[in-house]
Order: sequence, then C-alpha cells, then structure tokens
Amino acid sequence: MAESDLDLWCQANERRFLAELVEHCRIPSISADPAHAADVRRSAEHLAAGALRAGFRTAEVVETSGHPAVLAELIVDPRLPTALIYGHHDVQPVDPLEEWQSPPFEPQERAGSLYGRGTVDDKGQVWMHLKAVEAWTRVRGGPPMNLRLIVEGEEESGSVHFDELVERLGDRLAADVAVISDTAVFAPDVPSLCTGLRGLCHMELTVAGPSQDLHSGYFGGAVANPATALAGIIGRLHDGSGRVTVPGFYDDVVEPTAEERAAFARLPFDEAVFLHDAGDAPAPAGEAGWSVLERMWVRPTLEVNGIHGGYGGPGSKTIIPARAIAKLSCRLVANQHPDRIGALVAAHLESLASAGVTIRVHREPGGGMPVLTPLDHPTVQAGRRAMRHGFGADPAIIRSGGSIPPVATFQHTLGLPAVMVGVGLPDDQIHAPNERFNLNQYFRGVRTIARLWEEMATALG
Amino acid sequence: MAESDLDLWCQANERRFLAELVEHCRIPSISADPAHAADVRRSAEHLAAGALRAGFRTAEVVETSGHPAVLAELIVDPRLPTALIYGHHDVQPVDPLEEWQSPPFEPQERAGSLYGRGTVDDKGQVWMHLKAVEAWTRVRGGPPMNLRLIVEGEEESGSVHFDELVERLGDRLAADVAVISDTAVFAPDVPSLCTGLRGLCHMELTVAGPSQDLHSGYFGGAVANPATALAGIIGRLHDGSGRVTVPGFYDDVVEPTAEERAAFARLPFDEAVFLHDAGDAPAPAGEAGWSVLERMWVRPTLEVNGIHGGYGGPGSKTIIPARAIAKLSCRLVANQHPDRIGALVAAHLESLASAGVTIRVHREPGGGMPVLTPLDHPTVQAGRRAMRHGFGADPAIIRSGGSIPPVATFQHTLGLPAVMVGVGLPDDQIHAPNERFNLNQYFRGVRTIARLWEEMATALG
Repeated sequence: MAESDLDLWCQANERRFLAELVEHCRIPSISADPAHAADVRRSAEHLAAGALRAGFRTAEVVETSGHPAVLAELIVDPRLPTALIYGHHDVQPVDPLEEWQSPPFEPQERAGSLYGRGTVDDKGQVWMHLKAVEAWTRVRGGPPMNLRLIVEGEEESGSVHFDELVERLGDRLAADVAVISDTAVFAPDVPSLCTGLRGLCHMELTVAGPSQDLHSGYFGGAVANPATALAGIIGRLHDGSGRVTVPGFYDDVVEPTAEERAAFARLPFDEAVFLHDAGDAPAPAGEAGWSVLERMWVRPTLEVNGIHGGYGGPGSKTIIPARAIAKLSCRLVANQHPDRIGALVAAHLESLASAGVTIRVHREPGGGMPVLTPLDHPTVQAGRRAMRHGFGADPAIIRSGGSIPPVATFQHTLGLPAVMVGVGLPDDQIHAPNERFNLNQYFRGVRTIARLWEEMATALG
Repeated sequence: MAESDLDLWCQANERRFLAELVEHCRIPSISADPAHAADVRRSAEHLAAGALRAGFRTAEVVETSGHPAVLAELIVDPRLPTALIYGHHDVQPVDPLEEWQSPPFEPQERAGSLYGRGTVDDKGQVWMHLKAVEAWTRVRGGPPMNLRLIVEGEEESGSVHFDELVERLGDRLAADVAVISDTAVFAPDVPSLCTGLRGLCHMELTVAGPSQDLHSGYFGGAVANPATALAGIIGRLHDGSGRVTVPGFYDDVVEPTAEERAAFARLPFDEAVFLHDAGDAPAPAGEAGWSVLERMWVRPTLEVNGIHGGYGGPGSKTIIPARAIAKLSCRLVANQHPDRIGALVAAHLESLASAGVTIRVHREPGGGMPVLTPLDHPTVQAGRRAMRHGFGADPAIIRSGGSIPPVATFQHTLGLPAVMVGVGLPDDQIHAPNERFNLNQYFRGVRTIARLWEEMATALG
C-alpha cells in the first residue's frame, strides 16, 4: 500500500503522539471513585484543549448529572457527510496497586508498549482520532468530511447519564455514521473491524410457596417445593440442542450472512486459548449448529445469572424453602427488542408454573438494544479499506458478544450505522494491573483513522 | 370400659400428679443454652429422685459428653418381658419471652391446661410413666413386667450424644419393646398411636464450570452455565406424577397395608387446616396416587433444602456463575437405608451431568434410619388396647413424617419394636410461647400407660 503524505506526516510525528498520550494518561480520571471527580474534570479540560490544538473548530467541556464529557466539532462544509466519533476519557480503578510494575499514572514505555491506566482503554484510542484530525489539518488544511467528537467521562461507571446527554445535545450530534474506537482486535496481527454487539434484557423470577420455611419431615412430599419448582422451570428453558424454548424467541433474529459466517470461520480461533480465557471451563458448550464464536456473536442467550433459595450454609438444614429466586438475562442480537423478548420470556416462565406455587416475573431496568451494521454497508466497506491501508492486511470481520450502551444509543436513538475500529490487543490487560497500549497499534491506528475519513467521505459522498 | 383399681387410684391422685409436674417444670432445663447447664443437671437429679419415689428400684443421673440423662430400672422378674421407656427432660428456649401470658417456668393452670415450658414436651409425658409405675407399686405392689427408663437431656439440642450413651449403657438398656411418649395425637378427641417415622439422608450437590464468574456477554452461549446445569439436574429428579426418578429409589419401600391405608383414610383430615399449618401453601402437591397424609407418612421424598449460585443481590449482574450448589435431602420410609439411598441418588446425580460442567456429590453426616412397627405386631395391639382403655375410644393409627433419632436407634441398634404413645394435642404450642399440656390428656395418659404395662405383659408374655 503506497504511503500518502498523511502517512509520512504521521510517521514523522509519532514520538510527539506518544508524548501527548503520556500527558493525558497522567491524569487519574477514575470515574467510579468520587475522590477523583476533580481529576475527571481536569481530564475533560485537557482533552478539549487537545482537540482544539488538533484542529477542531470548537471543543468544550459539557456537563452531565455526573462527570463531564467533551464535545468537539469540525464542520468543514455542511454539504459533506459527517462522522460522530465516540470514546471515553475516564478510566478504571487501579487496585491492586502493588501488582503494577510501574505506577499506573506515570506512563512508562517498555518493549514497544506504553504501560499505564487508560493507555488503551480508552485515552489512547481517543488520541488516534485527535492526531488523525491534526494530520489532515496540517497536511491538507482540513479533513475531507465533517467530524463531531463526543468523549464521555462515565463509561467505566456504566454510562449512566449518556442517554440524557445525547438527548440534550440533540442536533449537535447530527451525523451520518458513528465511529467507535473502544474495542480490541481478534488476535495480534489480526486487524479487526467489529460490526455487531449484543443487546440485553434482564428479569428476576420468584417462585413462592409457603409463607415461611417448612419442616421437611412434617410437610415434605405433600406441598410443592419452590426450589424444586424453580429448577423445573429453568430446566425447561433450553432444549436438548441448546436452543431457548421460549416461543417466538428467535422470530426477529437476523441470521448472519454466508459471507459473515465464512469470515468468522476463517478467524484463527484457538479452543485452548478460549477455554483458558473462559476461566478454564471444562469444554465449550452451547447451541448445536453454530461455532463457538457464532454462539457468542450472532446467537441470543438466556442465562441464569444467579439462583437462590433456602439454606446455603455449612452442613444441612431440613427445610422446604418458602421461596426461591433466579436472576435471568438475555443477550440479544439484531433485531430482537428487549421489551418484546422480556415479555415473551415472562409469559413463558408464567406458563411453566407448576401446581402448589405462585410465580412472579419482575423486569429489571437497564438492558439495551443489539447493534448490527451489515457487511455491505458503505461505512463498513470504508472501514475495511482504511484498516487495510493502516495495517497492510484486510481486516477480520468480527462482532462482540458484549454490549456497549452508547453504541446502541447511536444506532437506535440517532439512527446511525456504527463502525467499531478498535486496535487494542486481546492481552492489553484492560481493567487490570499493567494495562498497556502497543505503540505499533497506536501509530498504525492514527494512520488508519486518517485514511478512514477519506474512505468514508467517498463512501458517503 | 370398666374402671380398674389402678384407674381409681390414679383418679384419686390427679391433683398430686399435677403438683409434681409443676415442680419439675419450674426447673429451666434449656439444653441449647450453656447458661442453663446447671439447671439441666438439676432437672436430671429431680427426675431421678421422682423415679425412685414412684417405685423404680434404681435411678441415677448418667453422664454424657453433654448434658446428663437419667437411667432408672425396675426389674420385677427377669423371666418377664421388659419395656424400655424413652423421654427427655430438657426443654426448648423460651424466646420471645414477652409473648408468654404467664412466666414459662412458673407453670399456671388455666382452663383445663397447665401452661409452661416443658409441660407437654416432654416432662409431662415422662411423668405419665412415673405416675403409672407408682400406681402399680402402690395398688398392686409392682408392675406386671420389667421397666427401664432412659430420659435424655439433649433431645432439644439434636440428641447428639445419645447414640454414644446407648452404646456405653449396653445391657442396661436390654428390653423387648421401646415405648416413647413424645408425640401428639392427630386431632383433639382422636387418641392416636404412632407406628412409623421417616428416616433421613442428606447431601450437597456442586455443579462447577469456570474457575471464576464470567462476563455473560463475552462468553454467554459458548460455555455451560453451572446454575442452568444444576437446575436441569434438579428438574429431572421427579417425573410428571411426582415420583422420584432415581433408579432403585423405591425398591426397598414397604408399602402400607390395606388396613393402614383404610385407617389413614378414616382420619378427620381437613385440607384447609393442613394448608394453614403449611404456611398457607397455595395447594397440596406431591406424588399421584397417594393422599396428603400418605405422602407425608408412607412415601419417601427427595427435597431441595437450598439452592445457591451466582448473584443474588438487588438489581442485576450479568455473569455466568462459576458454580452452583444444592442442598438435598431424602426423607426415607422403611426399609430404605440412608447409605443405599444416598449412593443411588449420588449415582443418579452424576449420570445427569451435562457437557461443560463437572459435578460433585458430598454426603453430609447425620441422617438416620426410618422406623416402622407393623400394625399386627403384638406391642401395637397392646398399645391400641391400652389407649382404648385410657381414652374410651379406639385410637387412630398414625405415623409421623419427621424423624426422632433415638427411636431409630432403639429399632435399628437395639432391635426393638417401637410404639409411640403420645398424648399431646396438635395446638399445644410446643417450641413456641404458651406451651401447655391439657390436663385431661395428662390424666388419661397416666391411666393409659398403667394399662399399657398390663397389655404389654400379656402380649409379650
């Protein structure tokens, strides 16, 4: 791939890109710890200043009911398409501190990586965007499309005020595509473009029998046992092939295309590595007819997150428990809607109630919509070309089984296709001691984003 | 029924029987509370003295590793049959004290009952035996058979040292029949003879998957969920008709005779009262083909006493739990053996393990054998005749779904048939505030026991 003037300028400025990231990472913007509230604000101010220096025309700290976000804007021509860039400037706590080989907020370069809290999650990936804008500004006078940047300060605390912020900002977030850099590649040397996330809904199931625990001798055999009844219900939520038995559960599921399945099948999946990462689980399991990756990426689930009833201490206590509960949640895929799935699951649970107990299903708040951008969408194609340019290889097409609520907000509230160009490595230790950002990924990331604006302008123009 | 000289003597001495019971009940022999250890000892000494006064030739306080018991003996002729009488002189705690209408250890006669802790459970029922012996001693110079009395001081604390005491006493407990007065009648005005108790075995089932809780987004669908797997196992332990599916589970079950089933069917069972007592359970439930009473008395069970795994707090936590456990127990009927049933259940649980999890079954210590004395056994017939004499009506034949470990010890360690002649009323508030003993039941109980020695001597002679 021929190097452009943008690439050359970026390569010439890499040490400065590194120095600027180090400065931002010195600010301990831990959003979960109220003692660091002033640091989160300082981080936002630092970032807004950096955005202005990079070429954004406006950049400001915007207040929320919690920690502040940063909003920046670079409208070069209202007739051109607009990208909305998302990231976060807050970071995870650092415990256990003693396991860090260098202090978390004194970033240190070692063996080609920058070590420190927030280096890759997500300050480094936000700086990729700032530096790509700077490249366009310095080399060509400005980017080939309009850019808006929203960087929140509460992602590591659940993005609890993000939806209200989006609503308040209204048109100031108007765009044609959302670009998110807050994910990792599939494996080292496998640049990856993520096109889907799962959604979520959760509920609590209560099975109640007698008003208090009963003596299992005097009453056992003649009254229903709520714990047994609960297990009976849960035991019927999956069939022998691992499919969820809730009627209508799969009705709205968008099947992956043949191209997607082929792309997933080509990935260098290593079962031993997967099982190790999965807490040394004894073996893969799940729905028949789908690969391990497909089970996590393109298939919905119904999981028991917790089950509790009766005695749980040492030894034994011969009671019939008065009640038993289960915490249930579904991971959803496009186009399942959490409200519809919640209602279907609740109705099915109620239909499975057995004699002698009463059941109650309580929908928990929270949850969210799944995200999917089709492979043939122009923005995905633009992302592929940009990564091929930046990394010298056609990127893998991946999805994530997790949920990133702001991305669902972009897609379902703002109606934007979402492209996730993340360059972290799987072993970057995010949320753990010794978080790091591989500098080769950082620098190639800047060049990828710089190319992305060009490809995106063409694709959407 | 013609009144005998024994009856007349008993009737003439009823006020004294009451006064003596009051004296014993003044001693707060709460075995569960270490602060009352001296009171439990004083209770034993008081009882031993009472036994000697009643006519027992020897009576002594015998030590255990815990609270002392009382052993008394009245061997009138080694060629005659011998009954071993069992009871306990310790009592339950009295909390909540403020709910007592009169102080628990200042027994008060009100409306035909004696109110106070231990009046019916079990001091009053022990005194029935002492006073019956005294009647024989005073009226006829001594009972028509040999009597041994063992009254333990730890029944309300689990009879933890009883088996070791029985073993140590050896031949000093040699007898032909065990007579226990520590149960209640089926209903007021329904004198009852209890011929069976259920046994017990318990175990803990652990289903383990990953070494730690996993993120249900990143891994959900591709690894087995231990809570779901546990529910799947438990959900298959009963079939659609409520029968336990463990192969061989019912092999050793002694079916009730037609006479027993007819006797149970004649009992004035009131479903509304039953459901009220069962914590207002919504409806009876259980194994098809058996009445509510039969399900509790003659059928074994497999109950979930507790089930626990994963998150149980407020709201939701989207994890796949690393493990889930269930506390299981079986109530057993003759001739099921806890070791054999424990092994059958464990093998069945292991056979139900699904892919991707490992299961472990841990047999909990404790448990015990079921007890059953056939209706046509001479001792049961003697008991029936004695109750008919004492209460003026043929007694109901009942069983109890609970377990009384000392009775199982008599039957299985000492090889004795066991007859349970209990005269408490169902609403005597045992283990609760305002425990009471209906005095009519007490006085008729003395005459029943006095008659029992005569019937038993004939039946076993």
